[in-house]
Amino acid sequence: VDTLRLAVIPGDGIGQEVTVEALKVLTAVLGGGGRVATTEYDLGARLYHRTGETLPDSVLEELRGHDAILLGAVGDPSVPSGVLERGLLLKLRFALDHHVNLRPSKLHPGVPSPLGDPGEIDFVVVREGTEGPYVGNGGALRVGTPQEIATEVSVNTAFGVERVVRDAFARAAARPRRKLTLVHKHNVLVHAGHLWRRTVEAVGAEFPDVAVDYLHVDAATIFLVTDPARFDVIVTDNLFGDILTDLAAAVTGGIGLAASGNVNPDRTTPSMFEPVHGSAPDIAGQQIADPTAAVLSVSLLLAHLGRDDLAARVEAAVAADLARRATGEVGTRSTSAVGDALAAAVG
Amino acid sequence: VDTLRLAVIPGDGIGQEVTVEALKVLTAVLGGGGRVATTEYDLGARLYHRTGETLPDSVLEELRGHDAILLGAVGDPSVPSGVLERGLLLKLRFALDHHVNLRPSKLHPGVPSPLGDPGEIDFVVVREGTEGPYVGNGGALRVGTPQEIATEVSVNTAFGVERVVRDAFARAAARPRRKLTLVHKHNVLVHAGHLWRRTVEAVGAEFPDVAVDYLHVDAATIFLVTDPARFDVIVTDNLFGDILTDLAAAVTGGIGLAASGNVNPDRTTPSMFEPVHGSAPDIAGQQIADPTAAVLSVSLLLAHLGRDDLAARVEAAVAADLARRATGEVGTRSTSAVGDALAAAVG
Ligand SMILES: CC(C)[C@H](C(=O)O)[C@@H](O)C(=O)O
Ligand SMILES: CC(C)[C@H](C(=O)O)[C@@H](O)C(=O)O
Repeated sequence: VDTLRLAVIPGDGIGQEVTVEALKVLTAVLGGGGRVATTEYDLGARLYHRTGETLPDSVLEELRGHDAILLGAVGDPSVPSGVLERGLLLKLRFALDHHVNLRPSKLHPGVPSPLGDPGEIDFVVVREGTEGPYVGNGGALRVGTPQEIATEVSVNTAFGVERVVRDAFARAAARPRRKLTLVHKHNVLVHAGHLWRRTVEAVGAEFPDVAVDYLHVDAATIFLVTDPARFDVIVTDNLFGDILTDLAAAVTGGIGLAASGNVNPDRTTPSMFEPVHGSAPDIAGQQIADPTAAVLSVSLLLAHLGRDDLAARVEAAVAADLARRATGEVGTRSTSAVGDALAAAVG
Repeated sequence: VDTLRLAVIPGDGIGQEVTVEALKVLTAVLGGGGRVATTEYDLGARLYHRTGETLPDSVLEELRGHDAILLGAVGDPSVPSGVLERGLLLKLRFALDHHVNLRPSKLHPGVPSPLGDPGEIDFVVVREGTEGPYVGNGGALRVGTPQEIATEVSVNTAFGVERVVRDAFARAAARPRRKLTLVHKHNVLVHAGHLWRRTVEAVGAEFPDVAVDYLHVDAATIFLVTDPARFDVIVTDNLFGDILTDLAAAVTGGIGLAASGNVNPDRTTPSMFEPVHGSAPDIAGQQIADPTAAVLSVSLLLAHLGRDDLAARVEAAVAADLARRATGEVGTRSTSAVGDALAAAVG
């Protein structure tokens, strides 16, 4: 990339603060402001209250003209549940075909885990991002009466499952341990489950070097707390991926450190990078949020754009910073102080 | 009850061994063999291989004539995934209208947790048992082609949600902390989620003493490892309940200790009690399985039949046994030695 055309959606609450720091680090690692051209989009609770809109068509079109999107966090208690999630966050993922929802989990040295000393944790969840129970299929009948019935339909297609399974195998093949675990619940959700299973079998034949494993989602949560070291690449559906990645974040130091990429590997649309955490309105505006997850999302962004060298530099800076926290070399710092330190380290 | 008419389904693998011990303890606490009349049903992998059947209609009818059912575990790698789950286990839960799937989680003193010292954990999950994505609604089209589409439909009714929510509130009201947490994902699964939410609000108005809390399922998994002490009663849907209770079991000493009741509180059909663990074919027949979860399921059975006094006696015996393991007073014992010790303690 010559100049990176980056769309920035700071969003709500701490999304604003952490995005500023992520951009600091991105600018520094790219070697200066000239290398990145940002356009900021004011989406989220404020726009919704002002206009009733969550993602105007014109904005969606403008977003398409960028190389990537950086998102802080959206959501506010003043907005009814589901409005910003379905109308903005999920709409972006679906409209821009972000079918690979990438969520690495790594326990960095020195970072405290609720599991005590669980050994080395370093895996990545490849969560399907455009199907499953997230498609918005379903409805309700006789709402508010004793005869109400509400349904939610999980939609799974060979097309959709195959492309994400293939992506996960490719990632597993490129990692030292070369192991892929499919997580589903095929003993109950037999139709979707068997599609996932057969697809992993078929695509796996093209990756003979990758060892394949299967776990029911309930068993997977057990292993995430009793033996997280067993995981290398996990591939799973949209809902199971949502659940597993929050749990994975919890055992590797909390969602304050968890980054994610909503990726379209075809690059026909911009991919979107965001911390796993939410807008945390209770601590917003106080400069106490940890921008690390947003900064690690920048690392994923760089890797997606083919700059593995710069991605590694950002990740190394974060790892060093986390180690310094563990030794007490650095104490409590403001959001911007953490960003400054990381920007200085990668610059 | 004069004589307890108990149907016993030992099932597969370690199901056989742990059921024997559970019956020992049940007989002892009831004060002798005359108090319980058991009928054993050979269901599971063997019957399936012999006849292709999983739950013959005649057996289902016979089961209805009992006061309760004790189930060991079913499942074997030789049976295709889903056959015994859908054809036996879930068929029983649905046919006998086991809408309250009751799963207590308690960290007994001395029991090691992967969380180290997480404080007091003592909560119960009230998992809906006859709806959600478990209904077997859904299907597949163009199977095996690149155009395959597979769907799974989560069905939620006001009738089904209300009765389990009401049961959960009643349980919360009877516990010292009087707190109920609804777990769902209403920001994405908006139709089902809003039905659950409105129902909790409406029924909650009848239980003003119970404090109500809400968590998205992903956030709930975080709290289960970072602050499990916050939970008292959790009410949730069939699938989320499946996931949360395995995780809850993991943080309270493992599924070797987790009991469950598939309860029809109306008592128009027999309720069914079973350990959360599976048939564990790898360790079957070796007398090394821990029968504690099966024994605790007997405690749930007794409580359901109104014998809280006997239920408490069984639970106290288990707690004392677990404490003796922690001090090293007892070492590795066979499955039957554990059962003998517990039977002696309650007798
Ligand atoms: C906010 C919500 C729609 C979202 C999801 O469920 O995907 C979030 O939990 C996440 O994991 O990014
Ligand atoms: C075996 C399976 C069908 C079952 C379930 O999903 O309910 C089990 O996991 C459980 O929790 O009892």
